[in-house]
Amino acid sequence: MTQTTHTIPELPFSIIADELERLRVNTPLVHVMTNEVVQCFTANTLLAIGASPAMVVAREEVAEFATIADALLINVGTVYAERLVAMQIAIDAANAAGTPWVLDPVAVGVLSYRTEAARAMLAQRPAAIRGNGSEILALANALNLCDVTGAGKGVDSTMSSTSALTAAQQLAAATGAIVAVTGATDYITDGAQTWAVPWGHAIMTRVVGTGCALSAVVAAFLADAPNRLNAVAAACAVMAIAGERAMECSDGPGTFVAPFLDALHVIHPTQLRSYSV
Amino acid sequence: MTQTTHTIPELPFSIIADELERLRVNTPLVHVMTNEVVQCFTANTLLAIGASPAMVVAREEVAEFATIADALLINVGTVYAERLVAMQIAIDAANAAGTPWVLDPVAVGVLSYRTEAARAMLAQRPAAIRGNGSEILALANALNLCDVTGAGKGVDSTMSSTSALTAAQQLAAATGAIVAVTGATDYITDGAQTWAVPWGHAIMTRVVGTGCALSAVVAAFLADAPNRLNAVAAACAVMAIAGERAMECSDGPGTFVAPFLDALHVIHPTQLRSYSV
Amino acid sequence: MTQTTHTIPELPFSIIADELERLRVNTPLVHVMTNEVVQCFTANTLLAIGASPAMVVAREEVAEFATIADALLINVGTVYAERLVAMQIAIDAANAAGTPWVLDPVAVGVLSYRTEAARAMLAQRPAAIRGNGSEILALANALNLCDVTGAGKGVDSTMSSTSALTAAQQLAAATGAIVAVTGATDYITDGAQTWAVPWGHAIMTRVVGTGCALSAVVAAFLADAPNRLNAVAAACAVMAIAGERAMECSDGPGTFVAPFLDALHVIHPTQLRSYSV
Repeated sequence: MTQTTHTIPELPFSIIADELERLRVNTPLVHVMTNEVVQCFTANTLLAIGASPAMVVAREEVAEFATIADALLINVGTVYAERLVAMQIAIDAANAAGTPWVLDPVAVGVLSYRTEAARAMLAQRPAAIRGNGSEILALANALNLCDVTGAGKGVDSTMSSTSALTAAQQLAAATGAIVAVTGATDYITDGAQTWAVPWGHAIMTRVVGTGCALSAVVAAFLADAPNRLNAVAAACAVMAIAGERAMECSDGPGTFVAPFLDALHVIHPTQLRSYSV
Repeated sequence: MTQTTHTIPELPFSIIADELERLRVNTPLVHVMTNEVVQCFTANTLLAIGASPAMVVAREEVAEFATIADALLINVGTVYAERLVAMQIAIDAANAAGTPWVLDPVAVGVLSYRTEAARAMLAQRPAAIRGNGSEILALANALNLCDVTGAGKGVDSTMSSTSALTAAQQLAAATGAIVAVTGATDYITDGAQTWAVPWGHAIMTRVVGTGCALSAVVAAFLADAPNRLNAVAAACAVMAIAGERAMECSDGPGTFVAPFLDALHVIHPTQLRSYSV
Repeated sequence: MTQTTHTIPELPFSIIADELERLRVNTPLVHVMTNEVVQCFTANTLLAIGASPAMVVAREEVAEFATIADALLINVGTVYAERLVAMQIAIDAANAAGTPWVLDPVAVGVLSYRTEAARAMLAQRPAAIRGNGSEILALANALNLCDVTGAGKGVDSTMSSTSALTAAQQLAAATGAIVAVTGATDYITDGAQTWAVPWGHAIMTRVVGTGCALSAVVAAFLADAPNRLNAVAAACAVMAIAGERAMECSDGPGTFVAPFLDALHVIHPTQLRSYSV
């Protein structure tokens, strides 16, 4: 039995505040293996929120660093053979060291090489998976959990997050990962329990890397997290709330980025707690 | 017989408006294979203007994606052996599928490896070529169409667009590509007919990637274009006009980028048509 | 005998002004081989200050370009085997041509592969080395000049620049390079003489690439420099002063970048000289 959309509870601000406070104390070191397009924005996002990013990519180095780091992000956006080998080495080392790792299945379902690569990674037990509606449906489909195709338009989703909610819950149950399917409303689920994160702004779909950077922030929140469902949901919430704040002083996608990073830098647990009452 | 500079007509606003309206309806999916420096800015430029960028780079994936995409950009700015193989696979697949592709010959004429690579690509019939004066002269020279060398200073041009106009017209006639040679005034030619685009601002030469991003926008306008000359010229014009607008609220190259992307996002066909009367 | 911290003289504004004036006249062509994260910001930084950046990375091209360029930057932030081969070819060609090159030892001391790679590069006589406290200590340790470890947290320093000052002086004396160890105060030394650069703002540690871009600016100032110690120190000073100016119109790390680049673009020797009197 899965929850239906209208019964999904909204993530409480008190949880967001607690999780953010934990991250700010931990200042987690995040090992980022992401695509060529978003590395700078991802690093600035992690720095702004209070984490410490490091992009280490060589097969000679990733095992050593995945052990040192507090969390690992794997994003297949511009994956190629050599980088995929390094990612698999990093995942194995992270698992051996107990370092949680996040899978961002960019454009999975569109291209067979990365779809197969991501399907194989699911067996390596990611702590979390963050994707748009099309990507989550494609992953669930690759595990024969659903028969919806709904491949994206390149890296963009053609399916709403709501239409992928059941697939997200099934994917979480089948893999043991927390699954975050993001869109107008984000849903974060462990298969049994699900949170809704209804904030954010549509302009974020016109700024490259907001989803990819969110996946890195998910990794940062997962570092030493006592409750992984809450950690992943808080990551989605903080990014969405910062996005809403940034739009208050933006005229479009270009002027969005700078105040978005500033908003991540100043967002404060005490302020978030004041929203709860 | 080629036109002399003073007889080149300015691209009418009505054409820019029509082409932009077509792009906004099409929301073309652009397969971007570009250099390591400008990927983020290129993606944000395409998103701002209303296209859908996807950077797919693996030799295992590019053929599949070049078939799905509406247009392909090949930019040799940071080309190396493995990426060049992938580019050639992508070009072959694009040609087989009828997907138009654009060549941006960054620093061709400066370095022999990329000059030979770009020369070879000309035989694969790009739909368009977009370069600065030095690059267009170097390509024409590589085909023995002219004997001017004028190699750039690294990636920057040492030759004006006007000095490369004849070479651009000869290159277009010899290759069948629309050639855009950009500079203080951009010239866009099919060898027989040529448009001038006199807008823009010199500060854009101090912002990395404005030329590279323009080449991606050229690809976006070429998707399903009934008139390729007008499509390429409109791409140059929209970028130049957005650049002028951005300078109205910028203090220098740093503060240029954000309002430039905003300007691309809001520029509207109706407004452009009002300039024509 | 090395200087103690309290006796290190502050770099005079007259030297900064002279060096900046020289750079603006030279407009040096800088061959940049840097990490995947900071390429765009590095290029924009060099363009803003008045240099001409070119990222050339293929083993087939780097020797040719290192000969054409006025200076070369080697940054090992995201080094991997193929890129390391290309870097070594570029360094050899730069040395053969008399082109000065700069080593930025990102995260050296944290990971053994890059530590060994950077240690080997020291024998190839860089003109300058720019790193944070942890990185400079790690390099000195790799040459058995000191026995402090103090490995960084990923790419971030855990050691102050002051604590690495003696190691910087020893590293300079042992390698013949100008060594810049940067932090709250930057120290620039040739082993015998040392300058202090006390400006800048802590927010720069929350913006990815400020250190990496500084290393590129160091390369730009080193081009044809009659006094390499002054050239490297002036590079650190110009970046720090621009950082202070940017903070006057910034709210956080996001809004820092644009005015920082603008400040680099407008900073003027005449103005700097007026500070000296």
